Amino acid sequence: MPELVGNVLVGQSGGPTAVINASIAGVVAEALNHGCIEEIYGTLNGVLGILQEDFIDLASESQQTIRGLRHTPGAALGTCRYKLKKQADFERVLEVFKAHNIRYFFYAGGNDSQDTADKISKLAAQQGYELRVIGIPKTIDNDLPVTDHCPGYGSVVKFVGTTVRELACDAEAMGQHDLVTILEVMGRNAGWIAAGAAMAKRRDHPHDAPHLIYLPEVAFSTEKFVADVQRVLKREKYCMVVVGEGLVDSDGNYVSAAEATDAFGHAQLGGAGDYLASLVAQHLPNVKARVSKPGHPQRAAAHAGSKTDADEAYMAGQAAVKAAIDGESDVMITLVRGETDHYTCETGLAPLSDIANGVKKLPREWINEDGTSMNHQFVRYVQPLIQGETPVPYENGLPAFAKLDKVRVDKLLPAYEL
Amino acid sequence: MPELVGNVLVGQSGGPTAVINASIAGVVAEALNHGCIEEIYGTLNGVLGILQEDFIDLASESQQTIRGLRHTPGAALGTCRYKLKKQADFERVLEVFKAHNIRYFFYAGGNDSQDTADKISKLAAQQGYELRVIGIPKTIDNDLPVTDHCPGYGSVVKFVGTTVRELACDAEAMGQHDLVTILEVMGRNAGWIAAGAAMAKRRDHPHDAPHLIYLPEVAFSTEKFVADVQRVLKREKYCMVVVGEGLVDSDGNYVSAAEATDAFGHAQLGGAGDYLASLVAQHLPNVKARVSKPGHPQRAAAHAGSKTDADEAYMAGQAAVKAAIDGESDVMITLVRGETDHYTCETGLAPLSDIANGVKKLPREWINEDGTSMNHQFVRYVQPLIQGETPVPYENGLPAFAKLDKVRVDKLLPAYEL
Repeated sequence: MPELVGNVLVGQSGGPTAVINASIAGVVAEALNHGCIEEIYGTLNGVLGILQEDFIDLASESQQTIRGLRHTPGAALGTCRYKLKKQADFERVLEVFKAHNIRYFFYAGGNDSQDTADKISKLAAQQGYELRVIGIPKTIDNDLPVTDHCPGYGSVVKFVGTTVRELACDAEAMGQHDLVTILEVMGRNAGWIAAGAAMAKRRDHPHDAPHLIYLPEVAFSTEKFVADVQRVLKREKYCMVVVGEGLVDSDGNYVSAAEATDAFGHAQLGGAGDYLASLVAQHLPNVKARVSKPGHPQRAAAHAGSKTDADEAYMAGQAAVKAAIDGESDVMITLVRGETDHYTCETGLAPLSDIANGVKKLPREWINEDGTSMNHQFVRYVQPLIQGETPVPYENGLPAFAKLDKVRVDKLLPAYEL
Repeated sequence: MPELVGNVLVGQSGGPTAVINASIAGVVAEALNHGCIEEIYGTLNGVLGILQEDFIDLASESQQTIRGLRHTPGAALGTCRYKLKKQADFERVLEVFKAHNIRYFFYAGGNDSQDTADKISKLAAQQGYELRVIGIPKTIDNDLPVTDHCPGYGSVVKFVGTTVRELACDAEAMGQHDLVTILEVMGRNAGWIAAGAAMAKRRDHPHDAPHLIYLPEVAFSTEKFVADVQRVLKREKYCMVVVGEGLVDSDGNYVSAAEATDAFGHAQLGGAGDYLASLVAQHLPNVKARVSKPGHPQRAAAHAGSKTDADEAYMAGQAAVKAAIDGESDVMITLVRGETDHYTCETGLAPLSDIANGVKKLPREWINEDGTSMNHQFVRYVQPLIQGETPVPYENGLPAFAKLDKVRVDKLLPAYEL
């Protein structure tokens, strides 16, 4: 493979996670090892930054800052949900890449982002512009195909599992067979995160919280829910329910606590958690329901993050650079689990087009027959992903996170109309 | 002081916290040092357990378990909100104490619990039954009078501050001067917890999140809120708002996102956070608002707890036993801050009746004139309380908490009708 001399551009896209910055740290650290890489740029807010030439010089950041990214949540370069649509957008991307001699493009994101990277890669090839494009997996939703799991997932499961354990201590102190504690977690289309709450059960303690998990994969039935809760409350002083925000009824419609509107018709209040609470109020006299909805903090909870997850995200960033140097392009880094009992994880490669158009569903056979608990296959799959604690440094009593200096790269082209 | 030989009873009451169990550990550890203490009992669910003779033998728990209580959230003995009302209830308490030769009663709780302890103490004195009653302060609300601060407060502030920092990383990645992130925290009657979010700002970074804090102490005005948010969004890419659940309007009524009802008239949805989001939707076109409402997990978040807080809770438990041995009674342990610049904390004593009828308000002079930020006096007050990280042990990727064996003490009396 002939050496390709030029500049690196790295970007982030989609929802932030606790570990997407670790992947950027991996890209920067590895890029510094290769003489054929001249500049290391970051694009602000993903493809938006490319269209607008909003680049920063990552090589000028301090080593301390880059190291700090390994435990800093969010997306330090900024992210976007902008989708390149028009042909003109794609042409502009290439024009900007040529102007800045970008020869290596790394994009961390989920399905949509990998689709964007794929299209950019194919257009460059078509125009004969030598460009190596490598995707880096990122999503708390754990729904990318091919890869064994996705950076970001282990950390959100660790936080949710921690929260279930702590909330269980709280509920156990209060309940007298009359308390339902509902935790609504993220996951609009799949139950990967809600299922992960099952990790809170200690080994050989099947009656530990969470007692009931409601997943988008299992059509919701009010009758079954009421019976489930009654059964648990007979046995336990409290019933802990975990529900994914994307819970659907048998017609495939999202359940939601009524069409609540304020005086102005705004604000659609109440999701799956509030809905379940309303069912308790309606069907179970003398039982109290309370709802916690951690929301976005759960995907940013680096202080309770998985070291395994952060390390793998870093490794994926490094692997992306190595693969590009080796001449690979139009592929995404995947995580490949070793086949031995002792967990190991290496990186692999998969065509971007395979990632862009697929979705990995939570296997139905990992859900127990009751529809509200997970079996040992699921536990075996997730267990290694939550191991180790991210070594977040504390300063004055709170976690200290890295902030980029963001030294701007000069713009070389006329402005572009979005 | 003549030696009083007999048994200890310790109980917990009110809402659980991240450190109330540390106080129990302190009581047990200290009680073992004194020969005049024969048995160490715990009452299950506070006064309810007394009325029903539901006692456990704490001395029979393993040392590992008692040590584990120092970082276990919730209330391991169970708690209650039952208020002793009838004279018969109080008579029953004394009858049970006499039957089990309880001579030392330690009660960890907030105002109501200290009031209960006070009444029990006075009745015993009146009846000539020698009993030493010591209250142990406990509340995340930090509203007990006399004591400098309350065990439980430092940990909830540390968790809220951590959450604000992480959520800020997430919001900063997404916002383009068009995103309002609202975090609703606990605190029905006072803004101590919401104010604590101010600790998330780094020193000399006044523009750090949280940008706006809305407190129950400052009457809410929609016009000012809209103007506040607009001002922040001009300067910052996102606006982070922290609001206490007890926000009130100028008439003193709780604000709430409309009278949302489901088809059955149940479920009063939406609190202060949802209300602020509805105002954004209504008054600020093209600005998106999102709400996180961590709920009860915030008061149980031992994994992000303050070591200072947990250590002081333990110390308060020890001090309660020492004071009782010294002949004190009808008092609560207080935390007394040293007067030097270097933070120190000792315990003191205050009459239970002073605690039961007072409330410590967040000083108005610690809130800046803008009504939405805290001044340096507040920061200086809270800073020491969040220092150090509770050393929670991890097992298989998640925090491992202590569970009591709960060996029951034989009942000696006929059952009591509640």
